[in-house]
Amino acid sequence: MKSWIRFRHVDGHIGFGVLENHRITEYQGDMFGDAVPGAVEPSLNLDEISLLSPCMPTKVVALWNNFYALSEKLGKAAPSHPLFLIKPPMSVIGPSEPIRRPKEYGGKIAYEGELAIVIGKRCSNVSVDQADDYIFGFSCINDVTAVELLNEDPNFAQWCRAKGFDTFSCIGPVVQREFDWRNARVVTRLDGVERQNYPLSDMIFSPAEQVSLISHDMTLMPGDVIACGTSIGVGSIKDGSTVEVMIEGIGVLSNTLQNA
Amino acid sequence: MKSWIRFRHVDGHIGFGVLENHRITEYQGDMFGDAVPGAVEPSLNLDEISLLSPCMPTKVVALWNNFYALSEKLGKAAPSHPLFLIKPPMSVIGPSEPIRRPKEYGGKIAYEGELAIVIGKRCSNVSVDQADDYIFGFSCINDVTAVELLNEDPNFAQWCRAKGFDTFSCIGPVVQREFDWRNARVVTRLDGVERQNYPLSDMIFSPAEQVSLISHDMTLMPGDVIACGTSIGVGSIKDGSTVEVMIEGIGVLSNTLQNA
Repeated sequence: MKSWIRFRHVDGHIGFGVLENHRITEYQGDMFGDAVPGAVEPSLNLDEISLLSPCMPTKVVALWNNFYALSEKLGKAAPSHPLFLIKPPMSVIGPSEPIRRPKEYGGKIAYEGELAIVIGKRCSNVSVDQADDYIFGFSCINDVTAVELLNEDPNFAQWCRAKGFDTFSCIGPVVQREFDWRNARVVTRLDGVERQNYPLSDMIFSPAEQVSLISHDMTLMPGDVIACGTSIGVGSIKDGSTVEVMIEGIGVLSNTLQNA
Repeated sequence: MKSWIRFRHVDGHIGFGVLENHRITEYQGDMFGDAVPGAVEPSLNLDEISLLSPCMPTKVVALWNNFYALSEKLGKAAPSHPLFLIKPPMSVIGPSEPIRRPKEYGGKIAYEGELAIVIGKRCSNVSVDQADDYIFGFSCINDVTAVELLNEDPNFAQWCRAKGFDTFSCIGPVVQREFDWRNARVVTRLDGVERQNYPLSDMIFSPAEQVSLISHDMTLMPGDVIACGTSIGVGSIKDGSTVEVMIEGIGVLSNTLQNA
């Protein structure tokens, strides 16, 4: 069971299941618990469904400064503990859903293509050795930012505000259970033009280290997402432009910025 | 229906209802929707229950620098928009539950007594005039902070980490629906000694302004909490010490710091 998805069927119901050879086996139960194939409709076509975010996190923990290449470019020392902010559940959208420009914000909006860790089991204070057991799988995330708000106030960096808007956490297309992050790259394309292409092996904190260290800061729940941070090549998105985040072995996440 | 509570009954079930004259009328349904008094057990005694957090927020939006007195003391200009961080759902506990010192953190832990706004209806992009309709009521919050983590990294203020630990958002004892914040004060006592006593009229952004402005940053959901920020008198809590946050018209929220 490699690629898990959530979807809205053309008949209106929301479901989840496994995607294989362009066919979907719908499951019943809990994706992170006892999921069993549904009896009624064993297999659906991709054209019967639209993909939703593959999970519904209670929080998205988004890392800053987690790649050596970007850290060097910014002239910032590598951190000794993951540096993060929290994005709220309502910020999450799935593949093909539009990123919406916030009302009353006319400034620059940036994309950040990243690897997303999807938590499978409630975890608190787990060691690095144990951490892989708590990872359900991996996805792509576009960690969108209203960059001009970040330093609007000289006394307080507004990370949660700049990154917390509805639709600013694009996740998908699938959660891939078997994925070798050490040999994968994150490629981000803006209207088809490659803007980011960086190796995940350049991460400062590995996925297991992130899960372990962050689980000492807060309990992580099934479906929670850790956005592993981005590397060089971040840029801004014009209204109407499409951002694709592609990680080989996971898939392509595509979202368009809408001014509405 | 003034004072709403959530509780765990001695028989193990979790319920909610209205507290009046030390008696509890249990309700069925949705506190923020169609709640009706239960038929079976119309009234419970306080000694049959233990209070839980009166709501279960999908996020706690916690303000920084929202009181003129503290802003002057810190020498920071009053902000032009609420400055906030996001605390995760797992940080929330109710009255009488212990604040737990994080494992592997031996540093200072600070209390901050604050007014909490509890959202009653999903809201997005509402005006200041409309905002009161979306406020269900008010509670007390102790916005706890592992202060030594805040500036541990010179490049990134770790607000979400320092304030996001499990048990670091103490909320209660009730949600008070009829409450005149303009004439109320927040009093914080540490082991019975008064440490904070400040008027809510000194707020930079009023509750309606906070709800309106933050609803332009993200959709607020029923049960979500805005912590209105604190004023002067913040201090640290020793292991075993008890913090009481008292707001006349709402009640007393009491929590003890446990090293475990």
